[in-house]
Amino acid sequence: MTVKTIVFDLDNTLADFMRMKMVASREAAAAMMGFGAEFGNGDVDAVGEEIFGHYLEHGIESNDAFISFIQKRMPDIAPDKAESIAAAGVVAYLRAKDALLSPFPGVVPTLVRLTGMGLKLAVVTDAPRFKAWQRLHHLGIAEFFECVVTKCDTGCTKPSREPFERALSILGISANEALMVGDWPERDTAGAKAVGMRTAHAAYGAFRKTAQSGAEFDLQNIKELPGIIERINREGERR
Amino acid sequence: MTVKTIVFDLDNTLADFMRMKMVASREAAAAMMGFGAEFGNGDVDAVGEEIFGHYLEHGIESNDAFISFIQKRMPDIAPDKAESIAAAGVVAYLRAKDALLSPFPGVVPTLVRLTGMGLKLAVVTDAPRFKAWQRLHHLGIAEFFECVVTKCDTGCTKPSREPFERALSILGISANEALMVGDWPERDTAGAKAVGMRTAHAAYGAFRKTAQSGAEFDLQNIKELPGIIERINREGERR
Repeated sequence: MTVKTIVFDLDNTLADFMRMKMVASREAAAAMMGFGAEFGNGDVDAVGEEIFGHYLEHGIESNDAFISFIQKRMPDIAPDKAESIAAAGVVAYLRAKDALLSPFPGVVPTLVRLTGMGLKLAVVTDAPRFKAWQRLHHLGIAEFFECVVTKCDTGCTKPSREPFERALSILGISANEALMVGDWPERDTAGAKAVGMRTAHAAYGAFRKTAQSGAEFDLQNIKELPGIIERINREGERR
Repeated sequence: MTVKTIVFDLDNTLADFMRMKMVASREAAAAMMGFGAEFGNGDVDAVGEEIFGHYLEHGIESNDAFISFIQKRMPDIAPDKAESIAAAGVVAYLRAKDALLSPFPGVVPTLVRLTGMGLKLAVVTDAPRFKAWQRLHHLGIAEFFECVVTKCDTGCTKPSREPFERALSILGISANEALMVGDWPERDTAGAKAVGMRTAHAAYGAFRKTAQSGAEFDLQNIKELPGIIERINREGERR
C-alpha cells in the first residue's frame, strides 16, 4: 500500500508550543512581579519556571492558570488585586506568544512539498477545537489541512482509536494508507499503530526525549518526511 | 476647593478603543472571507463595517461576537466549520488590536505631568474588571492609577452614583476635589455631576460628536488638562 495521507499532531509537532509556553511564562512572571506581585523571591526566571510547572500541572490549555497561580502563592490577596496582577501577566504572555508561536523550521516548505506530491494532510490533536484552529491560523498553515480532528470532535483523546478513525473516515482512506507524525510516543505512535497506521516520531519536537519511540521512523527534522514517503511509495509500487 | 484627583474614563478617553475595534473588525472580515466564509458579497470593507455594527449591537465587550455573526449570516453552517472560520477572525482581530490599541496622543505625557503636580489619578470604567486591567497593562499606563473602579466592583454602570462614590471613598477625597474626564456625556458627565464632581468632556475621543456636552470643559486634546487644573487651583487659592 502507498501512503496517501499524512496525519499530524499539532503542538510540538508542527509548532514549538512548549518553548513558547516556557518563554511566555517567564515574561508573564516579569510583568506580574513588575506590577507588585510578591512571590516570595525576586528571581524572575525561577518564578517563570514555577508558572510553567503550574501550567503543566494545572492543564496546559487552562485559561485561569495565572489567577490560580497567584491565589496559590499569595493566598491572602483580594480578588480585585489578584485580577489586576493576572491581567499584567496575561498581556505579557499574549505578547510573547504572538512573537514566539511559529512553525518549526521546515514545516511550511514540507507542507508545500507534501501537498505538491498529491498527499492529503490532516491534523489530529488533543487541543480544544477553537484553540487548535486559532493556532493553525496563527501559524499561517490552516489551509493545508483537509481535515482537523480535535478533542471536541470525538470527546476522546489519543491514544484512543476514535480521533484517528474519525480522520480516516472523513478522508475516506484506509489506515494502512496513512502515516501519523507526532512527538508523543504514548499517544501519537501507540494510538496510530493500534488502528493500523504507519508512524513517524517527531523527535525534533519531543518535550521529553525518548530513546525508543516505537515508531517506524524517527525524524530529526520534519523535512525528512517527503523523502521517507517517496521511498515507501517506490517500494510499494515495486511489489 | 482645589482639584486633588482626576478620574478618567478608560475607553475612548485614554485609548482609541472604537477606532481599534473598527479596523480590527475589518481585518477579521478579511481573514474569515479569505478562509472561505461566504457572507453573501465579496466586499471586505462592507463586511468589516457589518461586524463592527454587530459588536455595537451584540455588546462591545462580547467574546462570542464572531461566532454569533457567522451564525447570523450563514445559518446553515456546521458548528465545527463555524469555529474554524471564527478562529481565523479572532487571530486577525487580536493581531490588529495588539498593533492598534494605543493611548491617544498626549495621554502618557499628560499622566506624567498630572502625577508630577501631586494629583491622584483614578479610572472609573464600565468595562469588566479583567478586560479593563488588561487594557491598562496593554497601554502601559496601569501604574499611574491609585484606584481602578470597574463594572464588576459595584455592579453598577455610569451614570449611577455608585462607581463614582466608590472611587472617591477609596481615595478618601470629597467630590468637589475631583474632576471627571470622559467621552460619553450621558454617562461620564451626567454621572459625575450628580455626585458633585467637576467635569471635562473628552471631545477628542467621543464616538458620536456632541454639540453640547454639558461639561465644564471641552477637551480637544488631553494635553489641555494640566493647564485647566492649574487655573482652577490658582483661582481656588485666591479665594
